[in-house]
Amino acid sequence: MNFSSDTSAPAHPSVLEALAAANTGLEASYGNDAITLRLRQRLADVFGTDDFDYWMTASGTASNALALSCFCPPTGAVLCHAGAHIAVDERGAPEFFSGGGKLQLLRGPDGKIGSEQLDEALARINHDFVHETPAHVLSLTNLTENGTAYTVAQVADYAERAHAKGLSVHMDGARLGNALAATRAAPAEMTWKAGIDVLTFGLTKTGAIGCEIILLFGKAREKKRELEARAKRSGHMPPKMRFIAAQAEAMLKDDLWMKLAMQANQAARRLADGLQSQGVELAFAPEGNEVFALLSDDQVARLRAAGAVFYPWMGGSQRLVCSWTTQAEEVDALLSALKA
Amino acid sequence: MNFSSDTSAPAHPSVLEALAAANTGLEASYGNDAITLRLRQRLADVFGTDDFDYWMTASGTASNALALSCFCPPTGAVLCHAGAHIAVDERGAPEFFSGGGKLQLLRGPDGKIGSEQLDEALARINHDFVHETPAHVLSLTNLTENGTAYTVAQVADYAERAHAKGLSVHMDGARLGNALAATRAAPAEMTWKAGIDVLTFGLTKTGAIGCEIILLFGKAREKKRELEARAKRSGHMPPKMRFIAAQAEAMLKDDLWMKLAMQANQAARRLADGLQSQGVELAFAPEGNEVFALLSDDQVARLRAAGAVFYPWMGGSQRLVCSWTTQAEEVDALLSALKA
Amino acid sequence: MNFSSDTSAPAHPSVLEALAAANTGLEASYGNDAITLRLRQRLADVFGTDDFDYWMTASGTASNALALSCFCPPTGAVLCHAGAHIAVDERGAPEFFSGGGKLQLLRGPDGKIGSEQLDEALARINHDFVHETPAHVLSLTNLTENGTAYTVAQVADYAERAHAKGLSVHMDGARLGNALAATRAAPAEMTWKAGIDVLTFGLTKTGAIGCEIILLFGKAREKKRELEARAKRSGHMPPKMRFIAAQAEAMLKDDLWMKLAMQANQAARRLADGLQSQGVELAFAPEGNEVFALLSDDQVARLRAAGAVFYPWMGGSQRLVCSWTTQAEEVDALLSALKA
Amino acid sequence: MNFSSDTSAPAHPSVLEALAAANTGLEASYGNDAITLRLRQRLADVFGTDDFDYWMTASGTASNALALSCFCPPTGAVLCHAGAHIAVDERGAPEFFSGGGKLQLLRGPDGKIGSEQLDEALARINHDFVHETPAHVLSLTNLTENGTAYTVAQVADYAERAHAKGLSVHMDGARLGNALAATRAAPAEMTWKAGIDVLTFGLTKTGAIGCEIILLFGKAREKKRELEARAKRSGHMPPKMRFIAAQAEAMLKDDLWMKLAMQANQAARRLADGLQSQGVELAFAPEGNEVFALLSDDQVARLRAAGAVFYPWMGGSQRLVCSWTTQAEEVDALLSALKA
Repeated sequence: MNFSSDTSAPAHPSVLEALAAANTGLEASYGNDAITLRLRQRLADVFGTDDFDYWMTASGTASNALALSCFCPPTGAVLCHAGAHIAVDERGAPEFFSGGGKLQLLRGPDGKIGSEQLDEALARINHDFVHETPAHVLSLTNLTENGTAYTVAQVADYAERAHAKGLSVHMDGARLGNALAATRAAPAEMTWKAGIDVLTFGLTKTGAIGCEIILLFGKAREKKRELEARAKRSGHMPPKMRFIAAQAEAMLKDDLWMKLAMQANQAARRLADGLQSQGVELAFAPEGNEVFALLSDDQVARLRAAGAVFYPWMGGSQRLVCSWTTQAEEVDALLSALKA
Repeated sequence: MNFSSDTSAPAHPSVLEALAAANTGLEASYGNDAITLRLRQRLADVFGTDDFDYWMTASGTASNALALSCFCPPTGAVLCHAGAHIAVDERGAPEFFSGGGKLQLLRGPDGKIGSEQLDEALARINHDFVHETPAHVLSLTNLTENGTAYTVAQVADYAERAHAKGLSVHMDGARLGNALAATRAAPAEMTWKAGIDVLTFGLTKTGAIGCEIILLFGKAREKKRELEARAKRSGHMPPKMRFIAAQAEAMLKDDLWMKLAMQANQAARRLADGLQSQGVELAFAPEGNEVFALLSDDQVARLRAAGAVFYPWMGGSQRLVCSWTTQAEEVDALLSALKA
Repeated sequence: MNFSSDTSAPAHPSVLEALAAANTGLEASYGNDAITLRLRQRLADVFGTDDFDYWMTASGTASNALALSCFCPPTGAVLCHAGAHIAVDERGAPEFFSGGGKLQLLRGPDGKIGSEQLDEALARINHDFVHETPAHVLSLTNLTENGTAYTVAQVADYAERAHAKGLSVHMDGARLGNALAATRAAPAEMTWKAGIDVLTFGLTKTGAIGCEIILLFGKAREKKRELEARAKRSGHMPPKMRFIAAQAEAMLKDDLWMKLAMQANQAARRLADGLQSQGVELAFAPEGNEVFALLSDDQVARLRAAGAVFYPWMGGSQRLVCSWTTQAEEVDALLSALKA
Repeated sequence: MNFSSDTSAPAHPSVLEALAAANTGLEASYGNDAITLRLRQRLADVFGTDDFDYWMTASGTASNALALSCFCPPTGAVLCHAGAHIAVDERGAPEFFSGGGKLQLLRGPDGKIGSEQLDEALARINHDFVHETPAHVLSLTNLTENGTAYTVAQVADYAERAHAKGLSVHMDGARLGNALAATRAAPAEMTWKAGIDVLTFGLTKTGAIGCEIILLFGKAREKKRELEARAKRSGHMPPKMRFIAAQAEAMLKDDLWMKLAMQANQAARRLADGLQSQGVELAFAPEGNEVFALLSDDQVARLRAAGAVFYPWMGGSQRLVCSWTTQAEEVDALLSALKA
């Protein structure tokens, strides 16, 4: 009954098989290997376009910070939700990679930036007023940190407003698969078609070992060389890149990543339904693979006594995360323990 | 006949087996997993001490830059050889991680810092003269970029001089195993006993997928928390650390890393001997797994025509690198092609 | 009727006389001149202690950022009010100088950090949780950006709480004189005796050309060398420092700075009283030299038509700033124009 | 007999008069004052063009670092002489302002970059090779740190080669007046007509208090907004800018700066001639206001005993600097003391 995090899960067996398969013979280093190169076609298939460039790292923090640093100068700011991973959980990585840029924190319910808050922030941008730090990037997290999902329409709306003020739009898709499963949107619809310029496409939480793909779409491709230089200089160009690429290939093959994301979402759905049927209130709508349950101290104690693992979270809730490995039996066991 | 780089080699099968073995059940993230924790004992055995702390990354550039940034403030400098990897091949990573510190480049034959050059540089340090940037760290690369090895005595001598001026001493051991095989020194002798404060212990080139251990010895351990914070903030704390730790464990078990390093050195020795017996001059003494051969244009053309892969290097030489996978047959084939 | 800013005011004639007097003969550069050195005694007299070190710049942004960068590492954060000058008006200078540190913005009425907000922020600090950025510094602005003043008791209370959690305490005293005049506190009481470790002591707005003294008190003096190195490397060690020191000397002599600050406060008091007697509401208590008036659009138009200069500010108010040059006649003229 | 540095000299009386004249009434802050604005015409006259933008700081280090940071990205390098002020005397300011860019140090006699060294460095630039740091800027110091002057032809030649490889060209003109006096070149000829994109035009050493103008010529003007943002964020936008502008105005009026530079050069010429007539060898041709004399220990002791002030410098020489205040009598007194 371990619901601590999807980062605690092992990798899908296909990923391990892909690593073994990749481990033959000498290969060009630093991303010039055959697997990294042929990944282009796989990504083109997933995103329904050829108009992109990509780089991979083994860390979501790294991919987010690299992506943002190509679009936010040291004198600029990134608009994001006050609870965004880049703001709260990355130890200042965006500030470090951007050379001292700022995060401008916006409020909004359910982990989503509020519409008015976005408008206010966009209205304040004044490149002629040298004293304040103007926003250059809007960063949206989908799935949000509260387990909710922006719809395609919301993303497109926000991106349009941001573009109108000259900002680039980034999506932190550490749990992109879960967001797509929640919204039944295609990858293209949720990303470049909705106006996303640069995407951090996470596969680690979904089922890889460590594989987070940065995609530059359309005009953003002009940052490709800068992205690679920044990756190299931050230690995110390991010599044997083929082993990151092999993970991506395995995850993308036959939509394995979407299947695993859906599995995780379904387990969370089962958990949420079970909790609610026992009268437990949820802090946020459980749209992805995370459930934020408002449990009493007694309930928490009972679950822990039964061996359940999970962490206290925002607003007095308990966060219960399901991964691709979470079994229905495990969910049911937790629900039984709660009832007892 | 691929002698392009040891970074092009695949990983040893034991490494892949270790990954598969690690891929069971949920594990704590971010370095709190069982494999990372039990690695302490394995490292203690290898280095003959308990007085150390450690962190791992998948990239030598990252491990070097993180190590240096804990000891070189933004207002300080690192002394290193003008041809050092940190100076030439890391796209400014030390400057980035240190917040704008400097590398002060020293000359010296065979890829080693010259004794007089070191003394001159140390003598110039004047913390009271605010205009110049004082050195805070001495960085030694062993195996050097020229394929030569510092002896234990040289390292100890240089470290002592550096310590006397208040510097910390770093060793870039991306090819530490090759240097140890060359000098028949024990890990402890070449590192902390010789005065190394912080070591980048590379296993990637030796036979892992991506595993470079930063070790803080003795008093340098006070930097542990800073090292972890810097690792997190630079994206070098991937959630599923167990898969880096598993590589380390496999490589350290039964001294596999030293066996593989010796294999690579022996292949290079065979290659060097064969070249010299055909009258080819070598630019530097082939003490590790790299051979720098002064080949004529004709010779180069002949080898390339036969399918040999290698790159031109410093001083008009051709660099031929052997890895743990290099077979005697492959060496002999190249030697035959040259003769033909 | 120019109430735009105290930074628009000219310098006091004594300051110009001091520059002329300093302009004789050759002097050692970079802060080793006689005037800079003898300033120590003058500062000791003002602050009632010998236990301090100091550096000067010509810019409040520079002095704040230098001060903060000595106490907030790149991996740390500074607690400050959401409306603090360092957060809103310095284009990311603290982030730049600290190498990517964060500002953690706290709320509170009247431009002062709320007591509960401070406690919450302090309680959240957890150096063992590597993902979040722990606060290392508390920065208090006095006079605040809202024209209000922290009392000595408030400063001492907040500093004590911050120290208890291991933070250093900085005071942005760009308008320190105005705050002291408001609270009738002595410089020592408001600063080091209240727990301030590092002070940015502004004299520019008070009546100098450009002179902002950074003072390190007590244990903070161990940062002196680092402060000077950072000053040099950021271009804040101009060769002819004697001309900044001469300004400080002139301003400190016979408490000129306090007299000028009191003059400005009195003009603001007259203005505030006059506005209130005409029924104008003020957004914040006018404790220093700034008045934030809630004027109607009509009133604003009438004043502008009469030639008054001032800017719209927070909460729909209009900011009217008095400087040492503001005459009673000028205040009365504005009040008459409003009445008309 | 103080020949320590031109930074030790006082300011010309006209500069002080200008400050006093500027000290009347309220003025817009942060560079929007009347004096700063009307300086445009004065600079246009001096440089014979309207196609430029400008910013001012009080520090040469600041102006150099700001200038370079607009043209050298964090992932890039600046080519400069190994003895350049930006490399040796600015405590890493270029690395700090550029966010971790590199200085690539080139050799060459007499403080000038050697022609072959420049060609080699330019030939090595390969933006497609991500591991090495490509140069983005060539920085030339004129007058050099050795007191020699690049001719217009040399500057134009080097700038052309740099431009051909896509680099921008910076001139550190901390002693531009002295270089122009040495070469009898007009400001336009030595700068934008010769291919200089960004100039640090120093007036401090020439006779101001602290005034170093950054000029962006032609296409480089697109960096104006970035330059101002970087100036603000580094504390180099002091509120009362009119007092820096007033210095510039006084120095530029009636070519005062060139007269003062010529005076200093003439004093150095007199000193050099006198020394040579006594058989003293000079380390470098004394083309500007600095003389590098190869004095014996006895000679040094004799001069010091007579009260002469100067510092030991490169290559065993003694540096003797003349400023606009250096009198013929002072030079003759030193020469007499040497003879005695």
